Amino acid sequence: MAQDRRKISLPLHEVRRYLEPGPIVLVSSAWKGERNLMTMGWHTVMEFTPSLVGCIISSANHSHELVRRSRECVINLPTTALIDQVVGVGTTSGADIDKFERFGLTAEPAEKVGAPVVRECHAHFECRLADVRLVKKYDFFIWEVVNARVAARPAHPETLHYKGDGTFMAAGRILHRRRAGLI
Amino acid sequence: MAQDRRKISLPLHEVRRYLEPGPIVLVSSAWKGERNLMTMGWHTVMEFTPSLVGCIISSANHSHELVRRSRECVINLPTTALIDQVVGVGTTSGADIDKFERFGLTAEPAEKVGAPVVRECHAHFECRLADVRLVKKYDFFIWEVVNARVAARPAHPETLHYKGDGTFMAAGRILHRRRAGLI
Repeated sequence: MAQDRRKISLPLHEVRRYLEPGPIVLVSSAWKGERNLMTMGWHTVMEFTPSLVGCIISSANHSHELVRRSRECVINLPTTALIDQVVGVGTTSGADIDKFERFGLTAEPAEKVGAPVVRECHAHFECRLADVRLVKKYDFFIWEVVNARVAARPAHPETLHYKGDGTFMAAGRILHRRRAGLI
Repeated sequence: MAQDRRKISLPLHEVRRYLEPGPIVLVSSAWKGERNLMTMGWHTVMEFTPSLVGCIISSANHSHELVRRSRECVINLPTTALIDQVVGVGTTSGADIDKFERFGLTAEPAEKVGAPVVRECHAHFECRLADVRLVKKYDFFIWEVVNARVAARPAHPETLHYKGDGTFMAAGRILHRRRAGLI
């Protein structure tokens, strides 16, 4: 893989540059000696500062209890190089296997939370649970990103965007339209 | 524009095929003779059935009051052909101008809500407000999509995905990884 696996710090208000375009992500979690990984596509940036991200983690997922109890997770950003791992993680259950081992992904310690980061990913967003009031009704968790690290290059990673039914869209060309008033 | 502007109905549980990949969208609204349009990138699919979408519409946006009072909106999906309109809509205020007129966009009646659809867009998701409990704290609206219409072609429209600071990523190549267990 050509990607540089060393990561640099990202100001937290810039997390949106990676998550707003809607990539599929890998969510890692840990609780009482157990760890898990899930593929997730239903998420949105909610605020710049504090850096908030909302997402659906279904109670049908093994990760649901791990993130609810630990109140932490890491949102890891894979690129197209990891498409088969993304599919594998998304079609198996952590109740049956250790997904890191099964799919050859490397769990490394995060800096500020107990959940591990996935070394092979382009970026890691370490999260603490900020609001649970929609968890019961919608499985919707609101996270505060408390630490963000990204690969220095490429500047525009080829992220994966899920369209359902096994169809992914890869990030394409970059278009610039700088204007006053754009944030 | 090569795009077919005639639209066909989409089963509501398939809305995610268009919104899950994270495209920038145009939200149209109407209330008491006033109409408006805003550019929006902070949204997520929340459920298949009912078809739920959550999004941030800041109270700083002129559209906030229109959608809050009318309890309706249309989420319109633009493609790269509309990038300059997307930027124009996103950097002006409906308090000052009629954005449809200013940017040459056509407001047409929706089928089930009072807010207009933007004819030039690839798809229209007509929404009714489903849950407001996070509006006050986060400006987060939960919508139920009650009608969805999409252009029959292209099957994979070149959507726009925003990375901040005037930088857009266009939808790229399509990758298929059909597997048992994928939804």
